[in-house]
This record gives sequence, C-alpha cells and structure tokens, in this order.
Amino acid sequence: MGQKVVIIGGVAAGPKAACRLKRLDPSADAIIVEQDRFISYGGCGIPFYISDDIPNEKELMSTSFHVIRDEKFFLEGKGVKVLTRTRALNINRSEKKVEIENLDTGEKDFLEYDKLVLATGSIPNVLPIPGSDLGNVFTVSNINSALKLKSMITRGKVEKAVIIGGGAIGIEMAEAISDMWEIDTTIVEYMDHLLPFMFDYNFAQMVKAELEKNDVKVYVGERVESLEGDSQGNVRKVITNNRTLDTDLVIMCVGVRPNDELAKKAGLAVGDKGGILVDKHLCTSDPSIYAGGDCILNTNLLTGKRMYLPLGSLANRHGRVIGSNLAGKPETFDEVVGSFIIKVFDICAGSAGLSLESALTERINADRVLTVGYDRAHYYPTRSLLYLQLVVDKQTRRILGFQAIGDNNDAVSVRLDSIVALMQGNFTVDKVSNLEIAYSPPYASAMDSLNALGNTAANFLDGLYKRMEVKEFLDIIGDLKKHNAIILDSNAEIAAKPYVEKFGDSWLNIPYMDVRRNIEKIPRDKKIITICDSGIRSYEIQLLLNSHGYEDVICLEGGLNLINKMGIKIV
Amino acid sequence: MGQKVVIIGGVAAGPKAACRLKRLDPSADAIIVEQDRFISYGGCGIPFYISDDIPNEKELMSTSFHVIRDEKFFLEGKGVKVLTRTRALNINRSEKKVEIENLDTGEKDFLEYDKLVLATGSIPNVLPIPGSDLGNVFTVSNINSALKLKSMITRGKVEKAVIIGGGAIGIEMAEAISDMWEIDTTIVEYMDHLLPFMFDYNFAQMVKAELEKNDVKVYVGERVESLEGDSQGNVRKVITNNRTLDTDLVIMCVGVRPNDELAKKAGLAVGDKGGILVDKHLCTSDPSIYAGGDCILNTNLLTGKRMYLPLGSLANRHGRVIGSNLAGKPETFDEVVGSFIIKVFDICAGSAGLSLESALTERINADRVLTVGYDRAHYYPTRSLLYLQLVVDKQTRRILGFQAIGDNNDAVSVRLDSIVALMQGNFTVDKVSNLEIAYSPPYASAMDSLNALGNTAANFLDGLYKRMEVKEFLDIIGDLKKHNAIILDSNAEIAAKPYVEKFGDSWLNIPYMDVRRNIEKIPRDKKIITICDSGIRSYEIQLLLNSHGYEDVICLEGGLNLINKMGIKIV
Repeated sequence: MGQKVVIIGGVAAGPKAACRLKRLDPSADAIIVEQDRFISYGGCGIPFYISDDIPNEKELMSTSFHVIRDEKFFLEGKGVKVLTRTRALNINRSEKKVEIENLDTGEKDFLEYDKLVLATGSIPNVLPIPGSDLGNVFTVSNINSALKLKSMITRGKVEKAVIIGGGAIGIEMAEAISDMWEIDTTIVEYMDHLLPFMFDYNFAQMVKAELEKNDVKVYVGERVESLEGDSQGNVRKVITNNRTLDTDLVIMCVGVRPNDELAKKAGLAVGDKGGILVDKHLCTSDPSIYAGGDCILNTNLLTGKRMYLPLGSLANRHGRVIGSNLAGKPETFDEVVGSFIIKVFDICAGSAGLSLESALTERINADRVLTVGYDRAHYYPTRSLLYLQLVVDKQTRRILGFQAIGDNNDAVSVRLDSIVALMQGNFTVDKVSNLEIAYSPPYASAMDSLNALGNTAANFLDGLYKRMEVKEFLDIIGDLKKHNAIILDSNAEIAAKPYVEKFGDSWLNIPYMDVRRNIEKIPRDKKIITICDSGIRSYEIQLLLNSHGYEDVICLEGGLNLINKMGIKIV
Repeated sequence: MGQKVVIIGGVAAGPKAACRLKRLDPSADAIIVEQDRFISYGGCGIPFYISDDIPNEKELMSTSFHVIRDEKFFLEGKGVKVLTRTRALNINRSEKKVEIENLDTGEKDFLEYDKLVLATGSIPNVLPIPGSDLGNVFTVSNINSALKLKSMITRGKVEKAVIIGGGAIGIEMAEAISDMWEIDTTIVEYMDHLLPFMFDYNFAQMVKAELEKNDVKVYVGERVESLEGDSQGNVRKVITNNRTLDTDLVIMCVGVRPNDELAKKAGLAVGDKGGILVDKHLCTSDPSIYAGGDCILNTNLLTGKRMYLPLGSLANRHGRVIGSNLAGKPETFDEVVGSFIIKVFDICAGSAGLSLESALTERINADRVLTVGYDRAHYYPTRSLLYLQLVVDKQTRRILGFQAIGDNNDAVSVRLDSIVALMQGNFTVDKVSNLEIAYSPPYASAMDSLNALGNTAANFLDGLYKRMEVKEFLDIIGDLKKHNAIILDSNAEIAAKPYVEKFGDSWLNIPYMDVRRNIEKIPRDKKIITICDSGIRSYEIQLLLNSHGYEDVICLEGGLNLINKMGIKIV
C-alpha cells in the first residue's frame, strides 16, 4: 500500500482531490471523511431543485452517466473510501493523525495520514437578530436544508416568503419559489443595491427591475432587525428598519464564511478574517496539509491580495490541483479574477474582476464605461440587446472588471468568459477593441458588442467620449431649466414625441440624419445632453458639436434603452 | 478644409475608416469611391437573406436604427461623400491622384488625395472549367448576385441545385436553399473533407453528418470537371470525376482572392500569391496609402507568417484602425488567430487558430485532443453535448488551435471566443485547465467542458492518456481478432447489448462500477481498447489497467457519442 491520504470534506474539492490522486497514484490509500450523509453533490443546483427545473434531488447527486455518487460509487468506481456521518474533531499534526467521530454511534477513532487535505467548505451566516432561530427560517447550506425547504413548499403551506440578502443565492431562491410555486416573495438587502461587490449600481438596478417585473418585491438599503414567530414557534413577521413584512418562510442568504475551525485549532495559518492560507500549490503552512474549496483564501489577480471567493467552480479546480500535488506531480493554482453569472427570470447577468466600487475601495484610479448593443448581427432575427460594462485603470488602461446583462441564453457568457481569458494576460482595453470574437450573423456582429465596448473605453480614456451617468441624468431631468441644460434627442420624431410633449423646449428632437444640417438650431448658451436609444449616435453628435465649438456637451450613457432596462420611467 | 482622403471600396473597411476618420478629424474631406450601386451592406448576411430568415435585402443595408446606409446617409449622417457606380481606374502615386470613371455615364475624372485607402475587397474564384459561364451559375460575391439568386429561387424555378465548394459559404448556402426552399441540394468538395483548413477530419465529418441528416447530399474528394447547359444556355448538368449531377442551378463557392489589381498596377508591395502587404498600422509600402479588409494579408499570431483571411469582422476592425491613423492617432492592428463560426442546421461549428493539418503543414510538432462533455451542468434540463478539440504544440504545450461543435445556441461561441482570448497571451494548455468559465448550472459546469479539455490535453502531453482516433478504430473494428484486440466497454449492460451481440467475445462489457472487481476477467494477452459514451470513464479504466500491469491499453477518443455524431453506424 502506498501513501495514506485523509481528506476532510466530501462535497467538491475533497472528492476531486481524492479521485485525481487515485488516477495518478493508484497505490495511494485515499479516505474521505464527511459529516453529512450526502457527498459529492451539485450544491449550486439547489435553487433549480427548489424551482423544480430539476425535479429529483438524486440528479444533483448523480454522475452524467446516471450513477449516484455515494460511498459505493467512490469505493467501487474510484477506489476511494468514504466515511459519511463522520466528523473530524482534531488534527494531531505532530503524530499526523486525525481524530474522528461517528455521528450515528458516537464512536471515536483516529485516522493516520501521510498527507491531509482540508476541504471543509463554508458555513452560511445567520444574522444575529432576535428570532433567527425560529421555525421555517432556512439557510441554503446543503442538500438537507434543501430537502426540508422543498418539502415545505410542495405541501403548499407557503403563501408568502421573505428572503434576507440580495446576493446570488437570494436572487436564485427568489426566482425559484416565486416563479414555480407562485409564492409572494420579497427580498430585503442591507446594502444600497443588489449583488453588491459583483455589480455596480446600473447593473444591479437592471436585475432589480427584472425581479420586480416578475412580481418579486425588492427592498434595498434596508436592515432586518428581528423576526417574530407564532405560538408554534414558526416565523410570521420580518421587521426591518422601514417596515413589517408578513411571511410564512424566511430564507437567510447573507453570505457564507470559511469553515476553518479545524485548521485554526491545529495552528495552521489563516487570514485575519478567516480562511485558510495556502501557497501556489494549495499547501497550507504545514507541508503535509493541503487545503482547497470554500475554506481557503484565493489570491486576486487584479489586486494581488488574498480574497474570499467561495465558488463551486474554483473548489473543483482546487481539488484537481491538490490531487496532482499529492501524487507528486507539482501543479499550481493561479491567481483568480472571480467570475460570476446568474439567471434572473428572462435575463442573464454576469461579472468578473473588480466592480468600480471595489476598485475605488482598493484605491485604484479606475473608471468604467457602459455600452448597449446587439448580441448578434442587428439584422438577424434572434438578436437581443446586451448591456456591457468595462472597469478600467485610467492610468494603465488595464482591464479591471466586466459586467454584462442580456436576454439570450449564453450571450452574456460569450463576452464574460472572453474577458476573463483576456484578463489572464493583463491586457488593456485596446486589446478588447480588436478581439476576434468569431463572427457569423447568428452569433455576433462584425464589430461585436464586446469590441464596441473596447472602442468606447478607448474613446473615454482618450477624452473623446464625455459621458453622463444615469444617476446624474435622473437628478438633472427634473429641472433642466435650473441646470441651464437641454436634451438633444437624435431619435426619430415618433420615438421622441412623448418626451417633447412632457419636457417642452427643454427636449430638442433633431433626428440623427438632420443634425448636421441644423447645427444652428442648437443653443450655444446651454449645457447639451445628447441622447439616443443606445448612446452610439449621441456620442457621434457629442463629437460633432464639439467640432463646432460647443464645449459643454455630454452624452447620456446607454441611452433610453438603459433607462428602460433599469425600470425607470421618465415619460 | 482639412486633409483630403480618398477611400476606394464602400462595403466594410472603407466606410468604417471614413466614419472613424470624420469622428476624430471632422475637418477631413473624406470621399468613398465604390463601383457598385450598393454600399456598406452586411455581406455575411446574404445566406440568411437567401434563406428568408432575413426577408428583405434592405435589412442588410440598414443601420440598427433602421436607416438605409446609402449615399445620403453617409453624407448627411456621417459627413462622408460617396460616389457609387464609380470605378477607380488608376492611382498616380507621384501626383497623389486617383483616376475614376462613372460607370453609368462613362465620364472620367481625377480625385486628388493627401491620404488614400484601399478597401477593394475580394473577388470570388470561378473554376476554370468548361461551362462556368453558363446561365444560372452563380457566385456569392455581392448583393447583386444575391438579389438575382433569390429572385430565381422564389419564382419556384429551382428543383435541384449543386454547390461547388464545401467551405463556409457553400455550407451556409446549402442550408439556405434546401431548408427554406426545399431544393434538392448537393455539395461537391474537392478536398477530402468539408471546411478544409478550418476543421480536421472528425469535426468536418460531424458537419457532413448534420448536412446529410437534413437531406443535403455531400460528396467530398471529388473534382468538378465541367458544367453542361441546355439550348437556352442555362446550366443543367455538373460533371465530376465520379458522377453526373442534374441541376437547375450551380453556386460556386470556391473561395475568394484579394482584389489587389489597383495596388499592383500602382507598384505597391503585394504578397507572392497576391494580397496587399501592410505594416502594423495597416500602411502599405507607400506611406500615404493605407489598406484594409479582404484585399490585404494579415499576420498569423501562431505562425508569425502572412496569411489571407477574408473576414467581415477583420475588415471592420481594419477600417477603424485605419481611420484612427488617418486622423493622426497612431493605432496598430495586431496579429490574428483567425476565428470562424458557422450555423449548420441544428448545430453550431467553430474554430480558431491552426487545425492539426495546418500545424503539421507548418512543420510544427503538434498534436490534438478531443473531448465530449456537456455545455452546462449535466443535471440542468437544457444541457447538450459539446465536442471540443485543442491543437497543441507538443514541445511548448502552447495552444495552437481549437475546434468545437454543439447544439445549443452560443455554447460554442463561449468556449471558442475564450480560447481566442487566451491565445492572445500565448498561453499553454495548463491555462485552459483552470480558466474561470463563469459557473452557474444554466450556463456551464463547475468543471466546465473547456477546463476538461485542458485537463485532457495535459494528461495527453504528460503521457497519461493514450488515445485511439476514430479513423483507427473504424479500421480495426472490422477485424478485431486479426488485430488481437478486444473492446472493453464500460457502458451499462443495456447500452452495450447490441454491440456485444454483434461483436461477440471481442466486445467485453464490464460496466464502469464493476471493473475494479473484475480485473481478472480482462485478458492480458490482447490489445485492450477501452470505450464508453464520451471517453471519460474509458480514460479512467485505461489508467486503472495500466496500474495493474496492462500495457497495451488505448482509449477511444470521444466514445460512442462522437461516432454517432459523425454519422457512423457500427451496429
């Protein structure tokens, strides 16, 4: 028998490490210890199990060739022994053994190891507020809570639900329960917009609008202060700093934290705010102990700093790298940029790298541009609008972050994953302009919307493109006269009509094709805000006016399409 | 008035250069000369116009805000003058003027320039065979021939059509006319597989199978020798070295060549086989003359050599770079990898970089791996199989090329464009293993199929994965006994049954979960070919047998899924 390897944690990184190890070093004795009954399941599929897109939980636990990934599967298929319902209590590093407890029998034992892997995952946060221990208050932590939640929902006992936390899981759960089960659903988010850290305001607002369009109520910038229950001890009310919400169910989606208790007790190095520290080989401060998955800190490629990024995709890749290293085949795990994607009813939203807010928090001299364009040739029947944003370093022009929203399946992934790949080379926005997005009318534009985003970023950094943000526009639109500003709308007359009716001579409509001939109609003593549907024609007109000596000209970014997508009505 | 810029060519690169110039330097006097009546149209949309996905040709000529891009549009909207039906006859470089002719009046004139842009595009090849000048023999060269072709088809005069050339345009046209107009369609391709240079055999075969599944007949490795007509002078027969095909229509799609006549006459540097030579700024050998689009040669990032790559997407990007340089803002156009994508009935096929055939022709020490996996979480209902191939440098592990086929819209683009972006950094296969494809079950797998491709390539280069190609498998399967080989099939019993019935004891079925317990049943004196659905389990079993001392074990790449997708029936 070869080396003894003990792996603590049986969901993602752990099994991956064990199986890769056994493939490279079949003589190894690999044993996985997992406190739960279930192992190696697709935890990220839980919202889709709740929504019944995936009717049976077994599917989350099966291989692509329909075999349940249980103890038998790992033993007979992979040659890996798994102890479920077994908790690792302590690591004795000097004697290289792990104390374990069988949770069914209470029996304790020791496992000796040559190498140890910590894949202990994360722990869902629970708000420290009164009532958080009431009945029917859930976290989306594992398959057990998912089974309980779905059973409650399918019994038709839930009319109203409140989701605390408007991050990815909160939003996925909101869609799952409101769409399929027609539950009156409310999201309460403490930060001032949904999906903080992943999205800046405009994109978060588009997600909020999509949720609201689908009858999910969303309150942002609101703090949940307590939960109140009924006489059976089940939650009935959610009390925030602004309102009281009746409810039959609360799902707390307020983030997770690394489960690093064992590591800490064993004296391994962890980050200031938790999370096991590992080197490039995913080795901890003890050369015999590796760690991967949601219990470790990754290093951010863009900031060079450690960050906590609990993603199933990273966990799987960690597992493979650990497996290789265990087998004596040195492999490294590079810095990460953090890529994120979410389905929200009929839209897809994705991001990578730093949001502008995050970049500014890191004191990077950053800014951002936003474009609206089609995801395929504008004449191709299935085309749909894509909203894209690039966050850039103003000094170096380096790509720092990306955000995208679109309607067509995978159209966001195309641009998002391409930018993630470009980030690996530390490229600048200029590389985005000429990236060879494969072109055919059913899939992209000849000048793809991603290229156009690069062009816009370059124009912005070069001082050609002067942009007004939506927030600023909404501030000014209420009293254009006070700001001595007028709107110059280059849309067609018919599209502009309701705006002209509402805003009168503060809304000057000169269709795009007529502007060059009518320059003299545009006042020289006012601030000019150029607008169109998307921000493309209005940019051209901003430049045209600049070339005619107009200095105070600014272009509304994203145009009326963006405003509409953000759910804002100005007429 | 500022600098005078004359642009010859009004389809893609030309108008783009003119408009970018005018945005950056509004004082410039930009004039486009175009021999055709139509300008600035989406030529790549022609097959979709023929298929009626795009019913009206005006859509190919309109902006995304529904304005026809004609002379008036360019003059009033962009400040660019366009002379249509005007041919540039000669360039007088010493006097810096272009002789032009009005094709309607025959009138000749001169245009003076400070800077000149050549965007003269390409010329479709016509086979030098008897009958190529018959009636109803078309090329897909421009909107005029498209109008004529569609008019003929919609009048219901066409029952049978032959397409000569199985490249991208030939295939798109085959789908267009056979699917919508129910024309009995045949493709004849001279090379031994479809889409030569873009795809290697396996992928080309999957495209062929998809065409045949949709009733398009395909003959590869067949030379068209002559066309024969009727008494009205219209084509009626296509005669190849193998057969005679009746037809009402011939579409010749045998490639295009750079339209570099003007450049040659003016003494500008061109490549040995044609194509204008330009530097990084897209400037020709004359510092006052730029060139872009289908008339120039690009430089290949992977080989460092010049190549001819007539793509609408590159033409547009050339145009923009030229526009910037004309305006005194130096910009460069980088080396290209060549990205390609095509819709073929219900599949999408894409490639980038070098095919293995091309890489070997370039005498690069290259090889390739192929994987089959899902495009999203295997438990997500809309998942579909993706067939991916990576071409790699065996010495340096550098990514050289990529090929992909899938059923879901955009799922191919996601992986293709990501690899194109990675190629910019000259990365190795190891970067593919950990690329952060944004993960959520509706969009990708936790370990995405692209990551799995990287893993497989690494395993292959590390000597772990030993692969049998489909071609080799088909050679050997006819007489396994002669080759002293057996198939070890790890699929479930029910799936394996028809194979076992046909191949008897040469087809040993031991389901995946049972292999470890039944090693002794596997003969030690034979070559073992491990197979499963996709090549994943069979790889594991290859390693397992290796670890038990079996040396002559080889894994069928892509498994039975690939064989099926290639349209091959072995039972």
